[in-house]
Amino acid sequence: MQNNNKRENAMMSAPTPFDYTPLLAEGLPPAAARWNGFPKYNFVGGNNDADQVPVEKLLAASTSVLTREGATLATYGLNSGPLGYRPLREFLVGKLKRDAGITCTADEILITSGSLQGLDLVNGILLSPGDTVLIEQECYQGSITRLTRRDVNVVGIPLDKDGMRIDAVASALADLKAKGIRPKYIYTIPTVQNPTGTILSEQRRGELLKLADDYGVPIFEDDCYADLIWNGQRPPALYAMSKTANVIHIGSFSKSVAPALRVGYIVAPWNVLSRIQAIKTDAGSGALEQMVLAEFCAAHFNDHVPKLARGLRIKLEALMEALAEQFGTAAEFDDPPGGIFLWVKLPDNVDTMKLYQAAQAAGIAINPGTEWSVNARHSKSRLRLCFASSSVQEIREGVAALAEVCRREFGVPLRSANMERAKG
Amino acid sequence: MQNNNKRENAMMSAPTPFDYTPLLAEGLPPAAARWNGFPKYNFVGGNNDADQVPVEKLLAASTSVLTREGATLATYGLNSGPLGYRPLREFLVGKLKRDAGITCTADEILITSGSLQGLDLVNGILLSPGDTVLIEQECYQGSITRLTRRDVNVVGIPLDKDGMRIDAVASALADLKAKGIRPKYIYTIPTVQNPTGTILSEQRRGELLKLADDYGVPIFEDDCYADLIWNGQRPPALYAMSKTANVIHIGSFSKSVAPALRVGYIVAPWNVLSRIQAIKTDAGSGALEQMVLAEFCAAHFNDHVPKLARGLRIKLEALMEALAEQFGTAAEFDDPPGGIFLWVKLPDNVDTMKLYQAAQAAGIAINPGTEWSVNARHSKSRLRLCFASSSVQEIREGVAALAEVCRREFGVPLRSANMERAKG
Repeated sequence: MQNNNKRENAMMSAPTPFDYTPLLAEGLPPAAARWNGFPKYNFVGGNNDADQVPVEKLLAASTSVLTREGATLATYGLNSGPLGYRPLREFLVGKLKRDAGITCTADEILITSGSLQGLDLVNGILLSPGDTVLIEQECYQGSITRLTRRDVNVVGIPLDKDGMRIDAVASALADLKAKGIRPKYIYTIPTVQNPTGTILSEQRRGELLKLADDYGVPIFEDDCYADLIWNGQRPPALYAMSKTANVIHIGSFSKSVAPALRVGYIVAPWNVLSRIQAIKTDAGSGALEQMVLAEFCAAHFNDHVPKLARGLRIKLEALMEALAEQFGTAAEFDDPPGGIFLWVKLPDNVDTMKLYQAAQAAGIAINPGTEWSVNARHSKSRLRLCFASSSVQEIREGVAALAEVCRREFGVPLRSANMERAKG
Repeated sequence: MQNNNKRENAMMSAPTPFDYTPLLAEGLPPAAARWNGFPKYNFVGGNNDADQVPVEKLLAASTSVLTREGATLATYGLNSGPLGYRPLREFLVGKLKRDAGITCTADEILITSGSLQGLDLVNGILLSPGDTVLIEQECYQGSITRLTRRDVNVVGIPLDKDGMRIDAVASALADLKAKGIRPKYIYTIPTVQNPTGTILSEQRRGELLKLADDYGVPIFEDDCYADLIWNGQRPPALYAMSKTANVIHIGSFSKSVAPALRVGYIVAPWNVLSRIQAIKTDAGSGALEQMVLAEFCAAHFNDHVPKLARGLRIKLEALMEALAEQFGTAAEFDDPPGGIFLWVKLPDNVDTMKLYQAAQAAGIAINPGTEWSVNARHSKSRLRLCFASSSVQEIREGVAALAEVCRREFGVPLRSANMERAKG
């Protein structure tokens, strides 16, 4: 009795934890799940090849720049102001000219905390709830969810092997104009599109720019995979080709150097960039990362990127071979000209959202098509496989394990690769 | 004629630059002005003492952590997941226990890109337009502008030498309740308040927590100056004293190590932190800065901070002496127990917004009181002076120059220090 009373008293006096639920803003995403480490076979996320992080050169860059300028860390924005570390912007002026044909000054570049902050900032100056934008029908999930969270209407433009279909852009713009709707922008990843891997042809770029001018709709060009092209050949950026400054361009060092560094950039004319800078209220992006990157890139970027791309190409080939071996004709895909992902079509009866769940339970992470598309019907049997962070061995094992899950759940591929070989 | 025609043709064919104006979202802040470097006498911003950036130790930390773990930069979030680099969170578990009395686990800490991102994230899960919050009447400008931009109603609570006045909190909560309004939070910088420099007494902390519990209003505790206290003595954090987990706590390394690094943190129970993590869609904060900080702090934080504080105290004394010398009794202030700023009252006829403009023209940057307060009448003749980034010599010269401007504009101080001395 006494014990019971004690326990009761303890329970009565234990304070009730505060309930935040009634105070939460409306429309929040669900609570995050606890992170439990990476799955055994990880084919998601823009992670890169750990063996290709230029650790020694980053370390040397860190040492030299800290020795020379470390004391400037005492000042927000170093001695460069709110646009970001000036030597990094100056490196970008040269890089953008050489690689993308862009002519700009260091004062038309804003360094951001990854290109994701770039997305947020551009959206921040242009979008209000109820607005309309055009995007590629298959598209980076982070761009789609950002638009959804802002209650923006999304018109998806289908792609073919040359990227966004310009006839579809023309129809969509005409339809919207007939309804009195002026879209806020046309968002495109024209150079190694995510997830399809396509490169918008130069001719289509010209046509897209003309449409954008005709309809008074700016282009939002996301170029963050453009450095990783096997043959190093790419058309000029839309930003470079525009005659009317109707393009806002964003890019990143996540794919070309290291994603964990969180350094991206926005290129825009000052009349736009000054509006963007005004809503970048973070007191600057991380200075140490900008300093180390600037120091590294000035000396090594041009050598590092082709080497990185060669290594990624080897992994892509391993992935394509493993898919052919394990899935046979059940897995359809184009050999992409660059990037870190492969967009795969499975037979129509495969629902990749269900495959994703079953694979997750088996320690395999994939991106289901519907999360990377605004056309659920088109993407239902498609999936995105990232190949940069796994080893060739993991790619082979992971694809075999995925085929096993897919066979169990959907009956395709019909037989395992080994059985087929044994029969053949 | 021919020349004119040519020019006319060229003008006609020059494409009109795209006009973004009609596409901009409503309610944007004005365009940013071009950055033109720092003023000669810079008494604004949370900049720190360049001579006290521990460059060599940061460099050693960078070298050891990159050598050991540099390859993990290939992965978003390193191998630590979305809450941030685990060794840094583990350092914070010990630091928060020792310095602030907070008991928490590494999974109740989210690393942010500066405490400004912490402000945005906490606001993001709690605030909608039309909501009401309580804040200290004199308050960090970045917190005030964030609330204004979200169309949130702000109720200012006056402060005295022991910080926020709890009687005023009680009245405000009762008034709001009578109107059927439940505020979303009580925001406070209880430990070295910005700009007043006050420390909320332990007794008041208990009273504030009780009021918060009684009214069902959580406390948002911003502790980002709390490391810089001359005698190292501080009351426990509100987070530590709460029995009901009704406090969200944020902090920063900006003031204790280096502001340009952009590393802060949020401490909250997981049921709150999981909502916050869900809206942190930036793919992680900068990894290199987290790694270098964790490595540096584990070895040197406890030695570095008191040394930094001693240096800041010397600058504060120089500032107070210069004010006494140049302004005499016209400048009133309390000797703050820590921090990097002094909150100064000038005679009632001085409008510090006008003083700010005149000083700016003379190469002197100050924070006018009305930008750091929600009570324009109370703050009109007050100003904030940051003393961390200027040298003692610059402080002396800058205060003399400011007194000169103030005398010219407002007739106070009556005579220059030299003249007074000559007479005396």
